[in-house]
Formats: sequence, C-alpha cells, structure tokens
Amino acid sequence: MQEVDQIIHARWLIPVEPDDSIFEHYSIVIHQGIILDILATQKCIKKYHSAIEHHFSDHALLPGFINTHTHAAMSLMRGVADDIPLMEWLTKYIWPAETQCVNYNFVKEGTELAIAEMLRGGTTTFNDMYFFPDAAARAAEQTGIRACVGLIVIDFPSAWAKDGNEYLQKGLKLYEQYRHHPHISTAFAPHAPYTVSDELLTRLCSLAEELEIPVHIHLHETSDEIQQALADTGMRPVARLEKLGLLSPSLVAVHMTQLEDDEFELLQRYGVNIVHCPESNMKLGSGFCPVSQLLDKQLNIAIGTDGAASNNDLDMLGELQTAALLAKALSSNASVMPAGTALKMATLNGAKALGIDHITGSLKKGKAADIIAIDLGAIETQPVYHPLSQIVYSAGREQITDVWVQGRHLLKNRKLTTIDQEKVKQQALKWKEVIGGSVKR
Amino acid sequence: MQEVDQIIHARWLIPVEPDDSIFEHYSIVIHQGIILDILATQKCIKKYHSAIEHHFSDHALLPGFINTHTHAAMSLMRGVADDIPLMEWLTKYIWPAETQCVNYNFVKEGTELAIAEMLRGGTTTFNDMYFFPDAAARAAEQTGIRACVGLIVIDFPSAWAKDGNEYLQKGLKLYEQYRHHPHISTAFAPHAPYTVSDELLTRLCSLAEELEIPVHIHLHETSDEIQQALADTGMRPVARLEKLGLLSPSLVAVHMTQLEDDEFELLQRYGVNIVHCPESNMKLGSGFCPVSQLLDKQLNIAIGTDGAASNNDLDMLGELQTAALLAKALSSNASVMPAGTALKMATLNGAKALGIDHITGSLKKGKAADIIAIDLGAIETQPVYHPLSQIVYSAGREQITDVWVQGRHLLKNRKLTTIDQEKVKQQALKWKEVIGGSVKR
Repeated sequence: MQEVDQIIHARWLIPVEPDDSIFEHYSIVIHQGIILDILATQKCIKKYHSAIEHHFSDHALLPGFINTHTHAAMSLMRGVADDIPLMEWLTKYIWPAETQCVNYNFVKEGTELAIAEMLRGGTTTFNDMYFFPDAAARAAEQTGIRACVGLIVIDFPSAWAKDGNEYLQKGLKLYEQYRHHPHISTAFAPHAPYTVSDELLTRLCSLAEELEIPVHIHLHETSDEIQQALADTGMRPVARLEKLGLLSPSLVAVHMTQLEDDEFELLQRYGVNIVHCPESNMKLGSGFCPVSQLLDKQLNIAIGTDGAASNNDLDMLGELQTAALLAKALSSNASVMPAGTALKMATLNGAKALGIDHITGSLKKGKAADIIAIDLGAIETQPVYHPLSQIVYSAGREQITDVWVQGRHLLKNRKLTTIDQEKVKQQALKWKEVIGGSVKR
Repeated sequence: MQEVDQIIHARWLIPVEPDDSIFEHYSIVIHQGIILDILATQKCIKKYHSAIEHHFSDHALLPGFINTHTHAAMSLMRGVADDIPLMEWLTKYIWPAETQCVNYNFVKEGTELAIAEMLRGGTTTFNDMYFFPDAAARAAEQTGIRACVGLIVIDFPSAWAKDGNEYLQKGLKLYEQYRHHPHISTAFAPHAPYTVSDELLTRLCSLAEELEIPVHIHLHETSDEIQQALADTGMRPVARLEKLGLLSPSLVAVHMTQLEDDEFELLQRYGVNIVHCPESNMKLGSGFCPVSQLLDKQLNIAIGTDGAASNNDLDMLGELQTAALLAKALSSNASVMPAGTALKMATLNGAKALGIDHITGSLKKGKAADIIAIDLGAIETQPVYHPLSQIVYSAGREQITDVWVQGRHLLKNRKLTTIDQEKVKQQALKWKEVIGGSVKR
C-alpha cells in the first residue's frame, strides 16, 4: 500500500480528456498537490492509502472551471447600474465610480469577494484584467486560487499608472515578482484596440514574445467599436492587430462579436484563442460571438463571465449553460455545442488559452489537483441518465460542494477554508457606501 | 393588537404592484391564507400580533413565481436525450418513451418530482399540459402548490383517452371535479394546431367560453410547424386559430416564435396572452419569441420553463434571467426588458394569462398569501445596491429559502414541508430504470 496525501472517491469522474469520457466509481489520488493516479475505486483501495480520504456517493468529479475573462474587483460594482446601454453604462456610472474609488484596497477587497464567489461556483483559475494587478495577485496568493493576472496597459492615466511607460514598467515588475509562483501567472492585458496606441501595442507584443506570456485583450465587443475603428484607422480592429503582429496562438481575444467570413480564416491561420462571454454580451446588447462557425474552424474557444458589473455573477456553470443554449439557438440546431464541448470550453480550452494546459484544465496524471465535486443527488438533477448532460443543463452552482486547487481543499462542503466570508461581506458593504455615493441613478 | 395567523417581517418587500416598487423593512400579515395587510414593520408590530412571526433580516419578499407553461411529469425524462434536433428528439426518444411508460402513476410521481423542484425554486403556481391531468391535479392537491391543470386534447389515442370525444369528456369531468377548489383550476389544453383538428378546436373553444376557462396551446414553436401548416392548410397557424375563433384574451399561446408584422397586430387586437419559454426554445434551436416587439404592443407576456426534458430544469428565476438577457441581446439594447419587467412577467403576467390575477401574482391586500423569501445575504449577491436588480441578475434558485401558498409554509428554510424528498428521489430512480430501458442512445 502506497501512502499518499489525499484520495477522493466518487460516483462519477468526468476528466474532460479524453473528450466526453465518463467513469463510474472512480478515484483520484493526490500527492504533493499533483494528481498521482486516477483509477477505479476498487483498484484504488487496494493500492493506495491516505489519512485523508473523501467519499462522494452522489457526486461527479471534474476539473475546476477556468474563468478565462473577468475583472474580479468589479464585483464591488455588481448591480450598481443595470438595464443601461453600454456607453452610457461606462461613461455615466462605471468610469466615474472607478475614477473616484479604485485603489489598491478596492482591488484587493473586490478581488477577495470575487474569489469567494468563484470558489463557491467551482472556478479554480481566473484570468483577470484590472487596475492594481498587484492587489489581485496578492488576493489570489492569499486565498490559494489559481490566477493569470493581467498586466494592464491602457493609454490614459489612472491611479495605477500615469502613462504607457509606467503601465509597462509596473507590469514587468509584477511579471518578475510572480514568474516562478506555483499558482499565479501573468499576461499582458492591453484593454482594447481603441484604448491602446499602435506604439504601445507593438512594444508590449514584443515583450510578451520575449517573456513567453499571453496577450489578453477585449476585441470586437460591439459594432460601435468596429465602426469607430473604421472611421479612425480605416481598418477593422482584427485587421489592425494583424498588421501590428499581435495575432498569434498567444493572443487571448475576448468577446469577438460581429465577425466577417474572412476574419474566421484569419483567426484560424494565426491560431488565435477566443474567449466567449455570452451573458455579458447579452446583458449589454453587444452582439453575438459566432461560436458554431468558430467551432467549425477548430478554433480554441474558452468561456469567461466578464466582470460582475455586467453579468452580474461569476458563475461559470451558469455561463457554460448559457453558452450552450445560445449556440444552439443562433444556429437553429440543437446538436451544436453539445454538453461535452461546453464543459471542455469552460475548462481545458481556458487552460490552453492561458498557456497552462500542461498544469491544469483536465483531470490527468501529473497535472495539478485542481478538482471540483458536484452533487448530482439534489432534486434538481433527478433522475441522472447522463451525468455530463445533467451537469451542463440542470445543475446549479449551489451543487458544487468541494473545490481543490493544487490539492488544497479550498471549499469543503460549501464552506470556504481560506476566506473569512463574513469579513468579505463587511468589506463589500463598506465599498457599497463609497461607490453608492459616487453614482446616483 | 389584532391577533392573526402569521406575520412575515423582511428587509425588503417587492410586491410587483405597483410596478418596480421596493419597500424596506416591511411586513406581510396573513390571516386565513389571505394577505390581510402589508405595512412598515414599525407600524406592524404595534398593530398586529401572531404566534407565528418570521424575521428575515437579509431577505426580500416577492410574490411566488408563476410557471405559465410546463409539462411537470416530464421531469422523469430530464436529460434522457440532449443535444438532439427537435423532431428526432420527439420521434426517436420522447414519444417512444411516452408510449411505453406514461400512465397515472408516471404522471403522479413525475409531477411530485416537478413540484418538489418548483417549490424549492420559488414557484407557487404552475400551468400544466400533459396526459393524465387527474394525476397532476392530485399531486398539486396533496402538496399544496397552486396549479392550473390542462385538460389535454390531442387527435391521437393515448393511454389517457382513445379519441377526441374521450379527451373532451374526461376533461369536462376533471373541470367539474375541481371547479370550486381553492388552489386548483383548469384550462383546456389542445396540444398544438398541428395535432388537433378544426372540429375539435372549435368544440373545445365554445366549451371554454361557456365554462370561462382559458385555452392553453403550443403555437408557432418552430419554422417547420409554420411551413407544414402552410402546406397542409394554406394558412399560418395563428391565422387558422383566428378563423376558428380561438384568438381571445382567454388564449394562452406558448412559444410564439417566427412572428410576422401583421401577426403582432392580430395578437394585440384579440388580446392574446403569450408565454415565452426562452430556454426550451434555445436548447431545441426552435427560434426566438420577439419579446421586445410584443412589449411595444403592450401584450401580456408570461414566462414558462416548458418541461424539464427540454430545458432541463423548472427554475423560474433562471428562466426570467435568461429571458431578460435574451431580449436585450436580440434587440441590441441593454435597456429592453429591465429587471422590474422581467419579474412581472414571471409573476403577475402569468396570473393574468391564467385568469387568476384577482387571487395571486402580486403581493396585495386581499390576494392569497402566495409568497417567497429570497436571501440576498449570500456572497453571490454582495453588495446590494438594488434588490430588484440583484434578484433578477445575480440571485440563484438556492437563495429562495421560504415559500408559502395560500399562507401554508411549503418550503421552510430550504426544507419541503409537504413532500418527502427522499421518497420522490426513489420514485425518480425507479422510473429512470423503466424509461432508460425504453430509449437507448
């Protein structure tokens, strides 16, 4: 008998790799934060022993969700201004609130609120873009969640940096600080083509190549963005990024609505990663990402919730459900984006986009033990014909009972183990008073 | 001090009437199943006393949701065949399973499963359409939920009835049985224009007028339905129903995709009620109900989940969220279908469609105490700027802690009081074996 750190036995195991596979009465063996073995429970109990063994008789084990685009700290602005068109929402509510309120503590405490919600919803990795990324990284470090922290670059001054140079410098410093960290990585995060100059985009692109980190950008969010780009530069945003050399397998392009036929070819040729944020796009009336066509082109599509100010939650299970339903609806075809594809987009494809699929994104020997357990014993998921279908089309975030990141048990029977939930609520309440004072509806 | 049956004190009260109103620190006084008073908690504690007083410091009280279209018993087929186009789904999976399995016990036990889920999700009334409506009515009677039971009519034989005459006769018998029932009403439920003959539609229409009950029908679900109708009858289904005299304020028309301009006028002229089932329409790739245009025409639009076999849940909070997001997305306008409108569609508008808005659908003196409490204290809804927005865009079904129908406390801190949850699960498991044997993927 081999002695190991931890063993999880479960009714079902859905590893995401190989595609659509489901194993019944299976176990995951964890040692030193890594998945040491995955095998039938009957075999496991003969081969391994641990002081910590979990038994989940009604649960499915899955890789944790990878929220491939969010602005975690914006959770503090959840619901501050709903049912308002995008530009009015940004210019009258969000930007004024940010100008007045955003500082290190806002981002630290907002990110803590977001992490609490994300862990409770089965997200084990998030890809963030916001001011004060040092605060977001610190929150991830302290709570144990995996994060890809965006080194934000934007061509206007903020409390974080006064100009393009300072954004890059501060970003590089943060990169250095975390480059060997076990669960925090970094990516350049130029806000959008319309807020970052050619010169800055070119510089950060060559830095990203040199450091081998991704570039995370909002791209083709709305038709207005494209019309404005045509008026200002004579080019559609995707074409401008091609000219500047940004299209590559390291690009993480978020939103991607309003795509034209030749742009599908372009994205495919360069192997660009797409992040689909269906609920934010729907809620803001921004447009539709053509997932069905992108799937036909074999592009890597991941899923993100966007920030809680425009969604208004960070619920990846809800998001992948919406994504699956919307893809079927838009293509008038119930077989588009089946359950297995939806789950893969919310897990492994996110890891690929962030360049960390050798570490996480599926349940596989040698990968980090980033695992979630979903209880399918609830009334809401009875009866269980197909556990994968039931998770994608019927289960709710509340059925996610346990979450591990690198083998650390961060959510234990719905209780957060590294976050003081009451403190996080009090912090949110305090910021509500500050922000509520700065934006009046 | 007036002695009453029950008092509920809460942080927020969202009565749905008047539109968009929110009251803070308010109380509902319940006596003999009826809302006797609604007033500020400060006043309430001086005026009323009860042996049963509930205090909800983080909760909002709302009228219960009205699921205006479902096939409750089909919960037993939840997830049996997903990601399959509509006609293949029906002909290869659902219809064969129904032919083989549907009987009184199937419907009774399936409806119990559905009611357990609906109560846990804050639904206090459901409008049902299925075989063996006597079994559905009995399940509603025993569990205490409010129901409008569909007197199904379809032009082919089933285990419930052998021909049109028998469907009508059995329906009339059920109508008689429940006509004075305090929480069960009936409606004629012709399945769809393509499955019921002109003659039967005409007969049931005049019966419905005579008895003053609604007519509940699937209408314009898919473009195929319309193409087939044009080929078979030379008319679009809505036009055929007009010719037969079915268009009226008593018609509850479900789905209503693929509408043309002149059809909006027609529906408005007759005051037809629309039931929007966004998730089922999306999941089956059926098409889009043009909610924004229907709202412009001041039509009464309610919301339904459809059956769990095509959704795959009976979660009205999730459904109204999807409805709001989809309406904004389709009209490229974030201000379409704001939170208050979405909530009204899921409550009062359903009551109007079913002709029971004098009894339920809003929190109002004299109406039945059909009430739900939603806990906004969870991490997922922090901070609370606008409780109505937070409920519509951030809250999950699991935050619904308490449900009353006619003053009966049917869900108490997430526990069902009239349903043995374990028994319902065992019944579902038993039917899964039967149905699973009849449909093989």
